[in-house]
Amino acid sequence: MSLTPDRLARMDATAKVSQLASAARKAARTLSVATGAQRRAALLAIADAIESRSAEILIANEKDMARGRQGLLNASLLDRLLLTPDRVNGIADGARQVAGLEDPLGKTLRQSVLANGIELKQITVPFGVIGMVYEARPNVTVDAAVILLMSGNAALLRGSSSAADSNQILVTVMRDALTTTAISPDVIQLVPSDDRETVKALLHARGKVDLVIPRGSADLIRMVVDESTVPTIETGAGVCHVYIDEFADLTKAIPIIINSKVQRPSVCNAAETLLVHKSIARDFLPIAMKALNEAGVILHCDGASFALAGEIPVTTATVENWSTEYGTLEMNVAVVDSLEAACDHIATFGTQHTEAIVTEDKANVARFIALSDCAAVMVNTSTRFTDGEQMGFGAEIGISNQKLHARGPMGLEAMTTTTWIVTGNGQIRS
Amino acid sequence: MSLTPDRLARMDATAKVSQLASAARKAARTLSVATGAQRRAALLAIADAIESRSAEILIANEKDMARGRQGLLNASLLDRLLLTPDRVNGIADGARQVAGLEDPLGKTLRQSVLANGIELKQITVPFGVIGMVYEARPNVTVDAAVILLMSGNAALLRGSSSAADSNQILVTVMRDALTTTAISPDVIQLVPSDDRETVKALLHARGKVDLVIPRGSADLIRMVVDESTVPTIETGAGVCHVYIDEFADLTKAIPIIINSKVQRPSVCNAAETLLVHKSIARDFLPIAMKALNEAGVILHCDGASFALAGEIPVTTATVENWSTEYGTLEMNVAVVDSLEAACDHIATFGTQHTEAIVTEDKANVARFIALSDCAAVMVNTSTRFTDGEQMGFGAEIGISNQKLHARGPMGLEAMTTTTWIVTGNGQIRS
Repeated sequence: MSLTPDRLARMDATAKVSQLASAARKAARTLSVATGAQRRAALLAIADAIESRSAEILIANEKDMARGRQGLLNASLLDRLLLTPDRVNGIADGARQVAGLEDPLGKTLRQSVLANGIELKQITVPFGVIGMVYEARPNVTVDAAVILLMSGNAALLRGSSSAADSNQILVTVMRDALTTTAISPDVIQLVPSDDRETVKALLHARGKVDLVIPRGSADLIRMVVDESTVPTIETGAGVCHVYIDEFADLTKAIPIIINSKVQRPSVCNAAETLLVHKSIARDFLPIAMKALNEAGVILHCDGASFALAGEIPVTTATVENWSTEYGTLEMNVAVVDSLEAACDHIATFGTQHTEAIVTEDKANVARFIALSDCAAVMVNTSTRFTDGEQMGFGAEIGISNQKLHARGPMGLEAMTTTTWIVTGNGQIRS
Repeated sequence: MSLTPDRLARMDATAKVSQLASAARKAARTLSVATGAQRRAALLAIADAIESRSAEILIANEKDMARGRQGLLNASLLDRLLLTPDRVNGIADGARQVAGLEDPLGKTLRQSVLANGIELKQITVPFGVIGMVYEARPNVTVDAAVILLMSGNAALLRGSSSAADSNQILVTVMRDALTTTAISPDVIQLVPSDDRETVKALLHARGKVDLVIPRGSADLIRMVVDESTVPTIETGAGVCHVYIDEFADLTKAIPIIINSKVQRPSVCNAAETLLVHKSIARDFLPIAMKALNEAGVILHCDGASFALAGEIPVTTATVENWSTEYGTLEMNVAVVDSLEAACDHIATFGTQHTEAIVTEDKANVARFIALSDCAAVMVNTSTRFTDGEQMGFGAEIGISNQKLHARGPMGLEAMTTTTWIVTGNGQIRS
């Protein structure tokens, strides 16, 4: 019995997700026994299908856009939702790019032979079934599916209801493409977004779903982390700091600060707070604040930096300021007594994403690395480099903000787990 | 203000755990900046102190034993609780052994130089603060603390109230020993066990505690997984299978089955179910069931194996049997139509711990590995080899039953996370 939309619509959320997960689990076997070449061929078939069925995809997207315009979606959300011929081709190209990456499965991570002749090998294997919970952008539907397929995992995709028509056609096109390959179409399942309860059902499908990855707003991520009994990987929030040490090369410091804040303020690796060592604050901060002001950045200051602002209009920073991910051209400024004090501030207000230090002192670099407790430490460079593509991963399913399993940008490898293969010739334990 | 037992007793559970976690977090800095030699020295100081204060430890343990005898503890639990001079020396030796292991911190996992000259390095770093929730055995208090310290983590230890006096003296001895080292004694914190709510408070201390590891009964582990908003690593339950393939060397099969079930039935890597391919069942099963019966194993059979039991007294297996981790000399037996059917059974009733296949056919080995979805696959050997010591880890903090972060036996390395160190010379993103 196939899971027709009609049958699904009559089930409650838990039953829906359970059925979809079971179908995905069964189909995942076609992935776990497939060769890398077969998984690559499936991705290329998906890419071709997306390009050749571009017209259908754009028509479905226009339905979402029309609903969005009538509804409450603002310009920024509408832009995230919009697909154009170029964007559709970009999605297909993304799938081809993933197909060209190194196969993450079957890699030997450790190997040894025990005294009794038993051979030990730890290899990479797929998780099995991975759920994605995400918001407006329909390209995530394909980006996530192809990364999960290439790493041998079935995908349960729960996008936003605002993108329901776009997501439905993209999943249909991908599933149709798989019918011509060695991979079962059931490895891609769209979780209905017309029922809010399906998200919770996904988060409680322990045993049926191996991992859930949320991508989207801080509220979404918090809900996933709080609710889920399925293991999750927290992605996203970035309150990143740039610390200018007493031994900084100040000619490097200004471009790094400006780039970290201004180059693309809406993303999670943009900086929100500038911390400056007290011994250089008097000379450096007026120049830095002027440069930020000229770049259009609104400044929120602690007492010491406020006193150095001069003509530049600044406000007094509140506790809320220090812990806000602005996503806009706003920045907090504080003077700190020491590198340790900078790390104290970071420990209190940071989100363990990316922390930058500008210094020429190697001992201070080592100390900052030991104390800053984050996914990526930037030494004399911009926070904006915490990025899968910049780091050469080729594809990124998100940036992990947690310490368990994966930290920082996650590529194909982060979507694998391991198995020990213990090979004997009849040995037993004595 | 120090956290005296009196002050702690007056707080509610959340405040207690929060205070202990904050003290541990602050003290953890002495670990993150310490060298491997300094952490080793701390472990050796702990080992020496445990040996030299053995008498105090035994007196405290006798208080727990006396309470246990008066209370409801059965002989098996009393034995787990008991410390003897030999066991105390064994605990100290365990700490010395961990001190002799390779330093898991600061290892470079990946390294590259980007086109713009930026250097990328992914290194291992500590989690920070790790909570352990465990049951009767007081040796876990020291075993866990030294593994966590060696991997640079502060330890919040929540043992059983039945071992309260033993745990208290062991923590006191370890903390006293640390006062002579570069490591702050506050990296080891005993979470009071006189208040049941402290477990829940630990599980909800998200942001304050980086990871919680439960060790103990299935009920404990389920509670931790269900309740926790702090990331956890599920350990423990093992419903392991031995599958005898149609191409098995049957002379190897019998010793492997007997060893997997009988050698130490109480542990999680002991086997609970025997699956036999139908084409060899008629010849092989009567011999296998006779051998199991002679080894004292009670058998629960499906229809096909029941019919082959002959004189051997067996019962009909229920759904409950197939999913029970006996921990005793009981075993389920089923005849399966194919390797795939064996993997279906394993997928339905297994706990993704250890699955064994006995076969001489390499293609079937590959297929079993692809389909059995577990932490360790045993090929022509006993399930009992899924064990940190057997696998050469030197120390084990538990066996992970989950796919996220660590799978199978966890040594020092599993108690680390990673940081990207991105080193530039003023580069910015264009």
